[in-house]
Amino acid sequence: MSQASFETPVAQPQHHSFQPPFDGAAADQQRSQGYNAQDTSSNAAPSRNRALSVRTKTASAPPKTRSRGFSLLSLRQSVQPELSRKLFRLIKSENGLVHAYEAAGRERIAIATQLSEWGEQTSDEAVNDISDKIGVILSEMGQLEEGYAAALDSSRNRLKMIRDTEKSVQPSRDGKNKIFDELQKLKMKEPQSVKLVMLEQELVRAEAENLVAEAQLTNITRQKFKEAYETEFAAIIERAEKQIILAKHGRRLLELLDDSAVSPGDVRVPYKNGAQARQVLNDAEDNLKEWQPEYKAPSDTGSDTSKGKAVSASG
Amino acid sequence: MSQASFETPVAQPQHHSFQPPFDGAAADQQRSQGYNAQDTSSNAAPSRNRALSVRTKTASAPPKTRSRGFSLLSLRQSVQPELSRKLFRLIKSENGLVHAYEAAGRERIAIATQLSEWGEQTSDEAVNDISDKIGVILSEMGQLEEGYAAALDSSRNRLKMIRDTEKSVQPSRDGKNKIFDELQKLKMKEPQSVKLVMLEQELVRAEAENLVAEAQLTNITRQKFKEAYETEFAAIIERAEKQIILAKHGRRLLELLDDSAVSPGDVRVPYKNGAQARQVLNDAEDNLKEWQPEYKAPSDTGSDTSKGKAVSASG
Repeated sequence: MSQASFETPVAQPQHHSFQPPFDGAAADQQRSQGYNAQDTSSNAAPSRNRALSVRTKTASAPPKTRSRGFSLLSLRQSVQPELSRKLFRLIKSENGLVHAYEAAGRERIAIATQLSEWGEQTSDEAVNDISDKIGVILSEMGQLEEGYAAALDSSRNRLKMIRDTEKSVQPSRDGKNKIFDELQKLKMKEPQSVKLVMLEQELVRAEAENLVAEAQLTNITRQKFKEAYETEFAAIIERAEKQIILAKHGRRLLELLDDSAVSPGDVRVPYKNGAQARQVLNDAEDNLKEWQPEYKAPSDTGSDTSKGKAVSASG
Repeated sequence: MSQASFETPVAQPQHHSFQPPFDGAAADQQRSQGYNAQDTSSNAAPSRNRALSVRTKTASAPPKTRSRGFSLLSLRQSVQPELSRKLFRLIKSENGLVHAYEAAGRERIAIATQLSEWGEQTSDEAVNDISDKIGVILSEMGQLEEGYAAALDSSRNRLKMIRDTEKSVQPSRDGKNKIFDELQKLKMKEPQSVKLVMLEQELVRAEAENLVAEAQLTNITRQKFKEAYETEFAAIIERAEKQIILAKHGRRLLELLDDSAVSPGDVRVPYKNGAQARQVLNDAEDNLKEWQPEYKAPSDTGSDTSKGKAVSASG
């Protein structure tokens, strides 16, 4: 048999209860090693202890995300190939997240100006100066949120690369399964048909093509998943460390504002902290300039992308 | 003159070019000390060097916030007293900011579940486990955003207290100015009028009432402004420090995922990092529990609020 000479193990889809026509022992051995990346069944999830899981568990548990009902969005999702549907939704949600942080950044910068203008209008020299400088701090905070939104978008682009690969692997799986089914049917109906040899050859070619596709999928999935969240975590740390710098200097500014209560008719001690307040802003600026990432996130056009491409060349 | 015995200095509104009928010397001395909290003119902003200011400076400079045009919002603003109008807008913008962070938190938590469910569907044991645990980290991140939104709202409530005081001080200023204007007009028209004495007495009462109101305003403004931004900066630092803890453990999880490329037909090394990954989550949980604020933000119902109230008792 031509199938027997094709030694590479290929796991069979779980909805077929019979043995595949090629080396079943190899496939069994493969399963026992926990290798089931080529499994097309979505019901194949092993039930493990998930005390610390975010996965929605049973139908009785309240869903964590609200249903959007019947909408254009859900129609569009239904035409996505099965394989890439979950990631398609996730990428859509990530878009919402990016927009939320963009909105936060924009609002924050607007508030910074409004705070400064309010302070000016109070005609209280101290509130005027401190509010203007707190405004500068808040405006920087807003810009950090905008930068974070941009980094999230870059992380999202890596997930898109997984989704696109998933999309392209689906026809390969479907094609292989179709030929396999056809072959089985013909074997039952006409075990002596001359078409059997041709179908078997076709299956071997489809298996080989699918094997490459599945290798590309696992490589892209792991690399891009890792890169996506390395980018995400690096962005979180950058935003956090810089916002801590700003907030600490912001507190120094607040300390320059005397908030002791005055009695009616009493005169406030004249504000003399203008130079100190200016120094706080200079310090904050210097500290932000000095900031260095402890760990570097993968760049958008890194050479590591070629790792995935090498597979298609070798296939 | 009865006004002369009322020694407390009161600055005159700048649109009156003449001397007020009470102790002008005291008022001048007061201005030279830079005390102009009672100045009602909004054109009184001194022009200082503002290299590090966020304030919109000239008409030719592009505005930092987009105009919303003629809307219900702008109509509603026009009925706010002049004094509290700027803070009214700022508080509205803060509401938008709170909503943006609430949305970010919600999206993040939804994405966490989606990521875990995507990983499960890949049928790749390693991606399955790591994505589920990254999902737990992301879900915590989302909850921190929601907590941050709540803290922002508490900061916003302090600004509302300033706005409400500003609102209540406006009629006091207006009333005082109205009597003052009436008195001046009558002095010009009927310098011997018997009504003059009555009006002067009325003015003294209005001045006294306004003096208390202005003291309340400066006290509430400084205390609540300081508290609002202390709360804000404390919340930024808490969110940042906790997200750094989560992101660093998130990176440890990513390191447990082998992303070396496999060739078509090669079998991945079986995933054996489940226990280690679980340990990372336990560590993250412990670190979050151990977290302590370096600095305490003012509580919402702090006794410091009584500082402002003490003024009204003494008035």
